[in-house]
Amino acid sequence: MHAVVNNDSVPVSKALLHVSDLAVQRGYGVFDFFKIQDGHAYFINEYLDRFYRSAGIMRLPVPLERDKIIQIVYRLIEKNALKESGIKMVLTGGYSPDGYQPGEPNLIMTHHPLSLPGEEQLRNGVKIITYDYVREIPEAKTINYTMGIWLSQDIKNAGAADVLYHKNGVVSEFPRCNFFIVRSDDTVVTPKQNVLHGITRKHVLELANRNYKAEENTLSLADVYEAREAFLTSTTKRIVPITQIDDKVIGNGKPGHVTHDLLEKLILLENEDQAKNGYPKKFYGF
Amino acid sequence: MHAVVNNDSVPVSKALLHVSDLAVQRGYGVFDFFKIQDGHAYFINEYLDRFYRSAGIMRLPVPLERDKIIQIVYRLIEKNALKESGIKMVLTGGYSPDGYQPGEPNLIMTHHPLSLPGEEQLRNGVKIITYDYVREIPEAKTINYTMGIWLSQDIKNAGAADVLYHKNGVVSEFPRCNFFIVRSDDTVVTPKQNVLHGITRKHVLELANRNYKAEENTLSLADVYEAREAFLTSTTKRIVPITQIDDKVIGNGKPGHVTHDLLEKLILLENEDQAKNGYPKKFYGF
Repeated sequence: MHAVVNNDSVPVSKALLHVSDLAVQRGYGVFDFFKIQDGHAYFINEYLDRFYRSAGIMRLPVPLERDKIIQIVYRLIEKNALKESGIKMVLTGGYSPDGYQPGEPNLIMTHHPLSLPGEEQLRNGVKIITYDYVREIPEAKTINYTMGIWLSQDIKNAGAADVLYHKNGVVSEFPRCNFFIVRSDDTVVTPKQNVLHGITRKHVLELANRNYKAEENTLSLADVYEAREAFLTSTTKRIVPITQIDDKVIGNGKPGHVTHDLLEKLILLENEDQAKNGYPKKFYGF
Repeated sequence: MHAVVNNDSVPVSKALLHVSDLAVQRGYGVFDFFKIQDGHAYFINEYLDRFYRSAGIMRLPVPLERDKIIQIVYRLIEKNALKESGIKMVLTGGYSPDGYQPGEPNLIMTHHPLSLPGEEQLRNGVKIITYDYVREIPEAKTINYTMGIWLSQDIKNAGAADVLYHKNGVVSEFPRCNFFIVRSDDTVVTPKQNVLHGITRKHVLELANRNYKAEENTLSLADVYEAREAFLTSTTKRIVPITQIDDKVIGNGKPGHVTHDLLEKLILLENEDQAKNGYPKKFYGF
């Protein structure tokens, strides 16, 4: 498997950073992650928009132009020849002279096999738990998952699939996913504030707007418990129905028809992207 | 300069981690840092207590026993022969199989020259700014300094030395220092909650208790603005007087006598520690 460190292609085993990097010293960096299938990087420009935006918010200059990154992405796809996969770009705080001041950021690109959620999760939905917390600088996709990883044990102990953050009862997001409910009048609602603007979240909002009513709004836990349907969205999971939150059953305890309908439409949207935006390989000189 | 990675002594240039480490992937890890002078690691057992406690809170097993770490510390001191210096121990989330699950933690020990605050800061005190934020899991010394580093630019722009966190006006700590005030009745007060339990903080509380009144308590910004003296404490800075907070002058705008008295006593306490606890080198087999 090949990886890229600062524009150098290396075997993944050689993808190393010196410990003075601010990611190791201070957990400082941003990243993004997008899905690859059959040689196509889905919605890559939307992910790159967000990557550059996160880097800008965190005051980290990205060492490569967008076209160069896209070129590298397609070289990795070609070299690694994985079927269902994801590419992760991490931009670190760089080698720090004193363990605190940022240096010149290091850009690391790694390529990973990926599996989509199984039939069982889609058919039966999942249970989630909740936790009072709001991410720092939530609009930037930083590498700080201290809380999410720390809570992994609690998720496991509760037999749950994930943990939904709320602050004083106002719901925001999961560590790695966005959250939606469907009200009894078919309105699709996702939290407006203190969330990462997920690319799948954006697509689901667009799809919901075309077919139902959709809104970004303040959502309390009380609103959530009264929802008829609930689901999470993410790049790797697409849409997964949620049927239980803590000890509360959502709706009739089964995945709802709006959830399933949006998942079908999301898959169609992915297919459209591949048909319309599949980069011809010759463009990148392979 | 020598460093140690997982019990292996290496030239610091060879202190590398694979990018799959959870520190790089998710900013997950803990650390600690203590001061070395003239071959002595000050209060090392107190720092190691805290290191093991942080690791325990964050569910990261430390791969080495305390005696082994102390042995490595004194080997680094011997080999690197720095006069005023600090040793940093970072315990990362380890090489993760999927970029999210912790692996076997990596332990990195690096040794750095250190300079104490200059005469000018001690004579005139420093200006600080404030920011509404509370650290996640504040009782653990995690590597997450996302907010502190992000605020570096604001500190610089304000011509300040540091940023004091408060949540809705209740003061806690600096990114890397603890905070104290001295009230007009000579009571020395430090925030009780949402703070890292600094080793220097503990020593200053003990010294203040012997000579004045000392308390850990809830401190509001209003309390702080009315203080007669204010100062910060840290391992590397010891005690630095604070004479301005945002646009408010503290006391008469000059470092106070309690602040200076505590600094003198702290230096005596360090000397005592060296006299009493300086490890005989032969104990470690050099």
